Amino acid sequence: MQKLIARVQAANSLLCVGLDPTGDDATVARRLGEVIAETAGHAAAFKPNLAFFLSRENGVALLQQTVRAIPKDIPVILDGKFGDIANTAEQYAKFTYDIVGADGVTVNPYMGDDTIRPFARPGKLVFSLAKTSNKPQYGLQDAAMTRGGSISDWAARLAKLMDEEMTASTVGLVVGASEPATVAKLRAACPEQWFLVPGIGVQGGDLSATLRAGLRTDGSGLLINSSRGLWQAADAGAAARELKEQINEFRAVTSPTPA
Amino acid sequence: MQKLIARVQAANSLLCVGLDPTGDDATVARRLGEVIAETAGHAAAFKPNLAFFLSRENGVALLQQTVRAIPKDIPVILDGKFGDIANTAEQYAKFTYDIVGADGVTVNPYMGDDTIRPFARPGKLVFSLAKTSNKPQYGLQDAAMTRGGSISDWAARLAKLMDEEMTASTVGLVVGASEPATVAKLRAACPEQWFLVPGIGVQGGDLSATLRAGLRTDGSGLLINSSRGLWQAADAGAAARELKEQINEFRAVTSPTPA
Repeated sequence: MQKLIARVQAANSLLCVGLDPTGDDATVARRLGEVIAETAGHAAAFKPNLAFFLSRENGVALLQQTVRAIPKDIPVILDGKFGDIANTAEQYAKFTYDIVGADGVTVNPYMGDDTIRPFARPGKLVFSLAKTSNKPQYGLQDAAMTRGGSISDWAARLAKLMDEEMTASTVGLVVGASEPATVAKLRAACPEQWFLVPGIGVQGGDLSATLRAGLRTDGSGLLINSSRGLWQAADAGAAARELKEQINEFRAVTSPTPA
Repeated sequence: MQKLIARVQAANSLLCVGLDPTGDDATVARRLGEVIAETAGHAAAFKPNLAFFLSRENGVALLQQTVRAIPKDIPVILDGKFGDIANTAEQYAKFTYDIVGADGVTVNPYMGDDTIRPFARPGKLVFSLAKTSNKPQYGLQDAAMTRGGSISDWAARLAKLMDEEMTASTVGLVVGASEPATVAKLRAACPEQWFLVPGIGVQGGDLSATLRAGLRTDGSGLLINSSRGLWQAADAGAAARELKEQINEFRAVTSPTPA
């Protein structure tokens, strides 16, 4: 957590560079190196998505190599959306922190708090899905419960409880950019927590509305993810700088105080 | 699916052998080979849990080696509880079917039908989480919605809809053994679908109550999983045979007709 706050300040950035490597195996390692080198100066964090590595032969080795290529002062969040329990989740924590070498992780709360607790480790960042950016035909997250609002409201409360309980770690939320009103509602419920925000760019989320809805009062607390927009850019560094600057235009303060 | 039905008939078994390999790397490959060789004659399916492989160096290679060691007529279900969408879920499908060589998979419906559809492939088995066997302090699955019952009821309906839509594949449910009344309720909602059932054994589920609640009228439709109970047995083959026979005592017919 200290690492994220320090990095957000040092880079003056809330940009999370998503690494969802597409393309043939021969070129993908080279492109990963390029995107990391070109965007690192603008990145508050990197977020490799596990699926795009596992789908390749020797994908875990490529993931390890990717994490090693990221400057040590930039937090790496492994987007695995792990959703298993107890001794099984402990194995995923071991994979994330010890095998991959990541500083954080995304988790899925369908099986309750049991999926989150095993990821507690000093200094680590755990982002639990609340409201995702996809628009399913048959969705769960907007369903209203007889008590306590919607499922995404429940998920936000769970993340908040876990953040309070897991004192050595930081538990944040995944909140997609597709519905700024939902971002605002979840920010009201969780005024202090970090939100990891996918859905800008190719997925069509509205950046300025999302920032207005989700920034904390200190102008921080959001990690705005871009994956394909940077991966496919002719100049990933320029694209990252531009997005970082667009984000900073909306921030109330440019050097957030640690919260 | 044909493979599962044929195997259930050939082995006269509804036992799913879970492979959650614990122990040091030096002995675990040997133990995997032993458990597979000793239990295969009694197994309707094998279910390796991804977490227990990823937490090791070269874990994917060990998983591939494990799947290759399983006789070709026995379906392999990769327990990954994958819960991502669209192009990302397609990568997990590629991993499951092409890299690992599995016949089936478990998926997590928190992000809606988008997490299930990409796993459609001819003959493949997709088990979507409905009611899991853990007992979280802060749980989601039992929460009541203002319309449509509980979350696990919603998940069961989703799996049923997906099974109807994904005609070339089979979509079943994960239904834990910890609450036989819930098993009965979900069976009433989904009379034809396959249920993958964890929670017997170490987790304390009641086998006979689960079978009474969950067996289809043809005496089939359940895969009763055992992982630790077999892994830790002095004689895994004897333990598997015993559990298979306990299950068969409760089946209304011993040679289920294909459904």
